[in-house]
Amino acid sequence: MKLASLYDSDTPYSQNKRDGQLVVVSRDLSTAILVSDIVPTLQRAIENWDACLPELTHVYDQLNNPACKSDKLLNTIDFTQASVMSPLPRAYQWADGSAYVNHVELVRKARGATMPESFWYNPLMYQGGSDVFLGPTEDIPLIDVDWGLDLEAEIAIITNDVPLGTQQEDAKSHIKLFMLVNDISLRNLIPEELAKGFGFFQSKPSSSFSPVAVTPDEFGSAWDGKKLHLPLVSYLNDNLFGEPNAGVDMTFDFPTLVAHASKSRALCAGTIIGSGTVSNYDRTKGSSCIAEKRMLEKINGGEVNTPFLQDNDRIRIEMFDVEGLSIFGAIDQRVVAQ
Amino acid sequence: MKLASLYDSDTPYSQNKRDGQLVVVSRDLSTAILVSDIVPTLQRAIENWDACLPELTHVYDQLNNPACKSDKLLNTIDFTQASVMSPLPRAYQWADGSAYVNHVELVRKARGATMPESFWYNPLMYQGGSDVFLGPTEDIPLIDVDWGLDLEAEIAIITNDVPLGTQQEDAKSHIKLFMLVNDISLRNLIPEELAKGFGFFQSKPSSSFSPVAVTPDEFGSAWDGKKLHLPLVSYLNDNLFGEPNAGVDMTFDFPTLVAHASKSRALCAGTIIGSGTVSNYDRTKGSSCIAEKRMLEKINGGEVNTPFLQDNDRIRIEMFDVEGLSIFGAIDQRVVAQ
Repeated sequence: MKLASLYDSDTPYSQNKRDGQLVVVSRDLSTAILVSDIVPTLQRAIENWDACLPELTHVYDQLNNPACKSDKLLNTIDFTQASVMSPLPRAYQWADGSAYVNHVELVRKARGATMPESFWYNPLMYQGGSDVFLGPTEDIPLIDVDWGLDLEAEIAIITNDVPLGTQQEDAKSHIKLFMLVNDISLRNLIPEELAKGFGFFQSKPSSSFSPVAVTPDEFGSAWDGKKLHLPLVSYLNDNLFGEPNAGVDMTFDFPTLVAHASKSRALCAGTIIGSGTVSNYDRTKGSSCIAEKRMLEKINGGEVNTPFLQDNDRIRIEMFDVEGLSIFGAIDQRVVAQ
Repeated sequence: MKLASLYDSDTPYSQNKRDGQLVVVSRDLSTAILVSDIVPTLQRAIENWDACLPELTHVYDQLNNPACKSDKLLNTIDFTQASVMSPLPRAYQWADGSAYVNHVELVRKARGATMPESFWYNPLMYQGGSDVFLGPTEDIPLIDVDWGLDLEAEIAIITNDVPLGTQQEDAKSHIKLFMLVNDISLRNLIPEELAKGFGFFQSKPSSSFSPVAVTPDEFGSAWDGKKLHLPLVSYLNDNLFGEPNAGVDMTFDFPTLVAHASKSRALCAGTIIGSGTVSNYDRTKGSSCIAEKRMLEKINGGEVNTPFLQDNDRIRIEMFDVEGLSIFGAIDQRVVAQ
């Protein structure tokens, strides 16, 4: 099933203005149906997932049935990426892992630092800001070009309620939805912030997510219960930037990240957990962020040529199924100087 | 005005089960009125603050008027601390500063490290988990005594929507409510986590907040628009643990913390910003966390005698007005081994 959250800009006093209006979206991303009679928002759906799932799935099956699709009684609307917010326009938790340790090692290598051995068995994870997310096609504000604005293409999952101390083997059952993320970073604010020891804050402005969130069954064998084995494709200004496979070189799989997050506290339904920047050892696959590309330029003995994002740059992040169809729709954002 | 969020345990399928039912509480914390006809939850109230405030204030004024108080038509209920969740039982953002730099310097001194000069002009702030908060009288789970469970008594504010790049001089107007916090920490998980460079995650389990949230006008001259000039009183097992004045030795005031948080992104209404552990140079005022007490024991050349929290320990955090009345009610929690 595919779900999205429509902008509700016409009703300024609506409760849904901040959280959008839940729609079920057809597999081919062409049409959608408002399901406010079942549940008004994605947050409410994930809080009551088992109760909502049968009815939502019924709508989805009808929407994908060519015979039903033409049935005017279904009240389908055309689905466009510009009409949706991030699936959870705001969330109670956004916890981002850094599961592609190859990427972390590379960052350190570029600045001549070694990586602690523990990074291979103890996941890195930071608490991200989740109160305001940008929409999948919303402009990224370029406040100060010297802050070093960068994209980070990642996969994220949404969980239902996860009890305190959930173990890896039980974590899989809490993974209800997948999304793509652009975990926007301000590279030049990071060193000073991390040196203070309290993690990221100003250096991680609002992230944006793919137009639709997708249930695990949509991936067939590409989702093995631990990793999602498909390439994550990023474009910068219509040039292919990277297409690493998200299932390759992922040191910590999603159930491990969920178990890590719940070690000392329960997680509320609607918790989003990210994979971190997807990265493969196979350098022909390109990168999922500019920082990595710059590091590779440096390690390869050349000059660092690729600048961070500039005014009017355009980023596109997408994932395709084996038949070449877009699974999540595209994160498609323009950088706009303020 | 004083506001709280009643547990809604009797209606298991209620929308309000996770967010509580908003009540206006009398100044003396004796009675309360359900205001679901005005606005159902505190999150919704803060999102629509200007629209809700006149009606809520009208209820509050009636509730505090002795003549009205006896009027059965008001449908008042007895207010008890055990009947409420944290004012925001979950939030979209919990950003905790460390504004009492004296405390930070002390921590570093104890381990023989100097503090960077920049700590005196650039606030420390970390992104905390906000998806599950404990109630003000809810047990604190002691999962593993070796993790070093500690209290941290702090002040926090709740903002309405704060635009990106809000300056200090405009920040004050976004501060709508105050609370007390017990920012629970797992001291022995912190060193390994901070060494990884991504900030706190497992070392900061769910925090708890005071029974009521309070508007700035309740403090009279004790709130000068920047700092709250009253002692924050902590008890451990009925022994006074500390009573530092929150208005003294606060290097970064609340408007500065709001401006810091909004430097690179907008903040959603319902954002909670904490002061960090309240600490005074005057050591006769005691401490607001065990870690500081242990450091003072070490610096003073003695043995570290005070253990971190043990099974069945009881913590009480409260603040009193000049007449000795409890302003927020008490955070009153017992530590319970799992």
